[in-house]
This record gives sequence, C-alpha cells and structure tokens, in this order.
Amino acid sequence: MSTDSHACGRIAPAVRVPIALGERSYDILIGERVLDDPASYEGLPRAATAVVVSNPTVSALHGARLHAQLEGRYARVLHVDLPDGEQYKDWTSLNLIFDHLLVHACDRKTVLFALGGGVIGDVAGFAAACYMRGVPFVQVPTTLLAQVDSSVGGKTAINHPRGKNMIGAFYQPRRVLADLSVLDTLPERELSAGLAEVIKYGPIADAAFLDWVEANLDALLARDKAALAHAVRRSCEIKAAVVGADERESGLRAILNFGHTFGHAIEAALGYGQWLHGEAVGCGMVMAADLSARLGLVPTAFVERMRRVVARARLPVAAPAAIGVERFVELMRVDKKAEGGEIRFVLIEADGGQVGRAVQRPAPDAAVRATIAACSA
Amino acid sequence: MSTDSHACGRIAPAVRVPIALGERSYDILIGERVLDDPASYEGLPRAATAVVVSNPTVSALHGARLHAQLEGRYARVLHVDLPDGEQYKDWTSLNLIFDHLLVHACDRKTVLFALGGGVIGDVAGFAAACYMRGVPFVQVPTTLLAQVDSSVGGKTAINHPRGKNMIGAFYQPRRVLADLSVLDTLPERELSAGLAEVIKYGPIADAAFLDWVEANLDALLARDKAALAHAVRRSCEIKAAVVGADERESGLRAILNFGHTFGHAIEAALGYGQWLHGEAVGCGMVMAADLSARLGLVPTAFVERMRRVVARARLPVAAPAAIGVERFVELMRVDKKAEGGEIRFVLIEADGGQVGRAVQRPAPDAAVRATIAACSA
Repeated sequence: MSTDSHACGRIAPAVRVPIALGERSYDILIGERVLDDPASYEGLPRAATAVVVSNPTVSALHGARLHAQLEGRYARVLHVDLPDGEQYKDWTSLNLIFDHLLVHACDRKTVLFALGGGVIGDVAGFAAACYMRGVPFVQVPTTLLAQVDSSVGGKTAINHPRGKNMIGAFYQPRRVLADLSVLDTLPERELSAGLAEVIKYGPIADAAFLDWVEANLDALLARDKAALAHAVRRSCEIKAAVVGADERESGLRAILNFGHTFGHAIEAALGYGQWLHGEAVGCGMVMAADLSARLGLVPTAFVERMRRVVARARLPVAAPAAIGVERFVELMRVDKKAEGGEIRFVLIEADGGQVGRAVQRPAPDAAVRATIAACSA
Repeated sequence: MSTDSHACGRIAPAVRVPIALGERSYDILIGERVLDDPASYEGLPRAATAVVVSNPTVSALHGARLHAQLEGRYARVLHVDLPDGEQYKDWTSLNLIFDHLLVHACDRKTVLFALGGGVIGDVAGFAAACYMRGVPFVQVPTTLLAQVDSSVGGKTAINHPRGKNMIGAFYQPRRVLADLSVLDTLPERELSAGLAEVIKYGPIADAAFLDWVEANLDALLARDKAALAHAVRRSCEIKAAVVGADERESGLRAILNFGHTFGHAIEAALGYGQWLHGEAVGCGMVMAADLSARLGLVPTAFVERMRRVVARARLPVAAPAAIGVERFVELMRVDKKAEGGEIRFVLIEADGGQVGRAVQRPAPDAAVRATIAACSA
C-alpha cells in the first residue's frame, strides 16, 4: 500500500475509526500519510487562527507538513514549541501556551493542533480545555504510544510535583490524525514504549489480539506499515469500545489502567522522565500479571507469557529494587485510582484458561508486597 | 417567614430552583437558613472527605455553621482558606487547593464545598473541575452577587495577567445552598455590587422584573429577607432558562453579559480588585444602554432609567476618564467575547417601547467611542 501510494504520487485512503460519544463524537484517521492528505482536514471547525503546539524535535521533523495543510485553511497559523520531555508536562509549559494565545489575541474559536507525543497531547489538550473555558483541538500524535493510547478517551492533564496527571480534564478532540509515516523517525526506545500499550489491549479485552501481537511483534519492531496500521486500528477500536461505555472513568474504563498502578509508582519513584511511561507500563503489566497469579486469577504460565512478550518488545520486566517495597506501596496509595487509601488493582482474570478479561479490585497487602519483591531487580 | 421560623426554632423550608442540564442537573436551595438545615445536604455524593474552600473573613463568620453540618456526613472535614480578593483569583490560589488536596491524599470522590463569594466559587469550582480530572463540588455562595450570578451556569475560572477569567472550565456544581442569613454580614458595597446583577435580569429578559426591582430597591438595600428571596429566586430562574438553552455559551447565553464588555474593560484598566465586579457591571450597563440608544435600539429615556436605578443601588454610573477612549477600546478587543478582533456588544432592543430583550452584535466604532466619552467622568 505504501509503495503504491508513493509510486503514483497519490495517498492511500485512511482507515477511519469513529469514536461515538454523542455530541462529542469524532473520528480517528489512520494511514501512511494522513497528515498530507487535504481530505483529512475537511469538516474541521473554521476559525481565523490555528495554533500548532509541538516541541522543537517534532516541529523540525513534521511541522512543515502540518503547516502546509493549515495555511490554506486558516488566515493565521501560529506555532508554539514546548520543551521536550515528561518533566516539562507542568504548569509552566501550560502557561507558555496561554501566554502565546493571549499575546496573539486568539479568540475562543481558535483551533489548537497538538503535534507530538503524549506529553504534547496532554498539555495542549488541557490548554484547549481551559483556554476561555474551551476551544476546539485536533490531535496529531507522533508516537506509537500517543496513537494507540491518547488518541481515544479525551484524557488531558499536567503533572503535579506530588503526582502524575493530577490536574486535568476530560476533553475530546475534534479529530485525531494518526499518520504512520511519522513513526519512521521515532527513536527505538519510544517505539517499544508504544508497543507496551498495544500489548496491553490483548489481556484486558481480546485474547486473539494478544496472539496476533505475539505473531507480529517482529514486523511491528521493524515498523512494517501494514502491521502498524492493524495494531493502531485494533488498539483504538478496543479503547473506543471501553471508553464509549464509560466516558468519565467511573468503572469499566479502569481496565485500561492494566499495568498502570505499578507503572505510575515506578515513574514517581524514579522521577518523571527517567523511565518512559510505556516502559513503566510494560514492567507494570508483568507485575499485575504476577499479582493476578498470586490471587489465583490466572495460571502462572500467563505471567511467563507476559514477561516474554514484554521483553521481546525490548521493555523492562523488573522494577528497580532500589525503590524498596515500603515506598513502592506508599506511592501506589496516593495514586489517583486509590480510593480512601485502598489501592484498586487492575488484574487479569482467565476464563477457562483463556485471558482477555480484566477486573478491578483490591488485593491483600502480603500478596502485593510479594509481587513487588519478586518483580524487582 | 423568618420571624416565625426563629420563634418556633424550626427552619422554614427552602425554595428550590431546579437547574435542568440533563445528567448535570442540580438544585439551588434558597432560604433564610438553608446552611443549618440537615435536609439541605440530603442526597449529596458520599465520600470519606469533604474539603471546605473559603477565605479567612468568610470562614470566621460562617465556617463553623457549615462544618457542623458536614462533620456528621463525612469522616474527615478539611478546610483550606485562600487569600481574600479578586487579585488572588489566580494560579497561586488554585495551587493552594491542589497542594492541600494532595498533601491530605484526597481521592477522586472527595467533595469540595466552596464557601464564599464569586472568587471562591470560581477558584474552588475550577479546582474541582481539574483535580484528578473532576471531583464533585457544592457552592455555598455568601455574597448576593454569587447567589444571583455564579449559582447558575457552571462557569469557573481564574484570571490571567492578560485577561479576566481567561483560564477556566464549564463545570456544574452538585447543589447550590443560597442562605440569605449570610447576607446580613455582607459589607454595603458588596450588597450593591450584587444588586447590579439583579438589575441586569430585567432589561435582558423580563420587563416586569425591572419594574419590581425599582419598586423594591429600598427593601433590598435594607436586606429585607422576603425581598431578597424573590430577587435571588427570580434572578436564578431567568439565568437558568437562558443557560438551559445554551450551556456552553454558543449564542443566546451571551445576553447574560449585558454590561460586562464595558465592565471588564474598566476592571482590566484599573487592575482587578479596584472596582468590584458588580460595580463595573453597574457602570457597564449604563454604557451599554447608552450605546443601545445611539444605535436607535431603545429610547433615550431608557438610558436615564438605567442610570437612575444603578445610582439608587449605590453603584457608579461613569467610567474613570483616566482610562482614555483608545485604551478602553483596546481592552474590549482582547475580551473573551471578541471574535477575530471584532467586539460583540450585548445591547437592549426595545419592543414597542418596552425593554426586556437583548441582542448581541457589533457596533460602529464611532458610536462606541461616543459612548465611552459620554459615560466617563
């Protein structure tokens, strides 16, 4: 498909994944060059000004492609680059966007384009949610993780020194442009981090997809476009089904946090930016699988299966032992998903030996500590 | 009513104004001592922790009354006081709340109670909108302005050095407790500021209510509870009807900003906190009436009528001449309600000589400048 479209100078049609959320519904367009296809921009809100929020690295790689499409549609196309990295996902970066919008007298119809990974999407999305109490925004995720995770769900946030994603909003984009060609420039470590979330969708919702991921992991690591297209599409579809049933995370949606309770504790302990989010989630899934096995919910063979697929994706499978069990538990207790100090874990529950279903529940302290000890190195 | 309820030691039933917003619907309870009535708290979300956000002045006056009702319902009742005044409606105050919530490990079920005037309601409401992407909150407005204005509409925000209410969210409370007894301790200047918004509802939506306000202004200034109850109730009903038809301020809702475009410019020019918001709106309504007359939308007698009722409410009727026409216009151009640099004014349109209807529209620059010049002193 990609060869054909390059050869004849035309762009293959994008795959469309509709996200059904009533009046907040939108489409995810997935394809090799959706960023360069004028059709990708049809029907977006009209305005005098578009503002592209990005970072210097991504701007240099893909900013011109987006700008070329926007300048014919908006009278004014502005750019604001935030510093690159999870450690800058904070109020200071958020305020850089506000300052830019206000200095340029941007009105409440201004459309924000978030061109970047999860950090850019989260900060720009939260800025869009708050600026003049809400302006439209479009996500252009440039990492695999952002394409399969932040594309769906409307979660936006900044970090607080006392916790990750503590300040934010549920705010839906008007469209998501998931261009697979931008993944060619993604560092290997970030590709692996994205695969962590791809791997996640199998155990929680679709056993066949876990089989597919295991069978196609080498193609994914080689950035084969057909494999990536299927991985992004199926990940978005599964997430969309879950989010559609529970937009504001009151229950079911929590299963998407498989691996995240352990993962967030690792990120918080090391300081944001040491491990990539996807790396922490990869390790966190192994730990959650281990805890599931300790509680008799899955056979121990599943723990080994998770450890193997996570390791094959070049992700860590053990937490830093230096964190210590006590501090690890304490960090999980202040996580957003804790309620009244009780940690609620997302665990896998095998059905006739087959995985593909997650449950959220507390776990005995001794089992949690045993998992942390067993999965640290 | 108030005498009876005191005499027999029982609390007269509150008036209930339902705000119909689908799944975000809530009630405003209006009455002389709704704060002390256990029935006022029935059906609120259950949680381990309630957090009362207030300021030292209001806390000292009414904090114990609220605390007494909450401590039986929540295992833990925390208090955080923000500095008092519009100049503190900023990120620093917002962050004081976040810090307090995080230091005390408050989870996402925590209920915030905003005990105070518009500043407290706006900052605490925005904190509730953003903390862990949204926790429930209850408004306990302690100024007349907050009772008749911020009680309805779900607008929350903080100021930015470059503009008022620039950063915020539409976020509905779970309930509003409008206790009329708290108005007994309100400074005179604040009572007048609240009357500005009460006066507003007549010209934009209900000619008979403007007649009623003119006839009952002395009773309102004397804090007669029956008069206040009617004023708060009718104001909330009118605002609810407008907001119910346009929750996110796409069109109709703009009429609630009668007097605000001129008013915001005055506040911005003087620096927030010099004039009270209601004082600026009072003067702004006279200016908007003047502009309406210049465009032939109302008879000139209406301008005099507005000037008289605003003055009787002990509110300013002329803008500070020191602002200057040029700067005044420039400040209106960066207002949130401007679109593409065009200022859209809320003007009154008389129907057969009778007021009670507002329109939003641009105005010729010369007329705007003439109004500013004529209404400055």
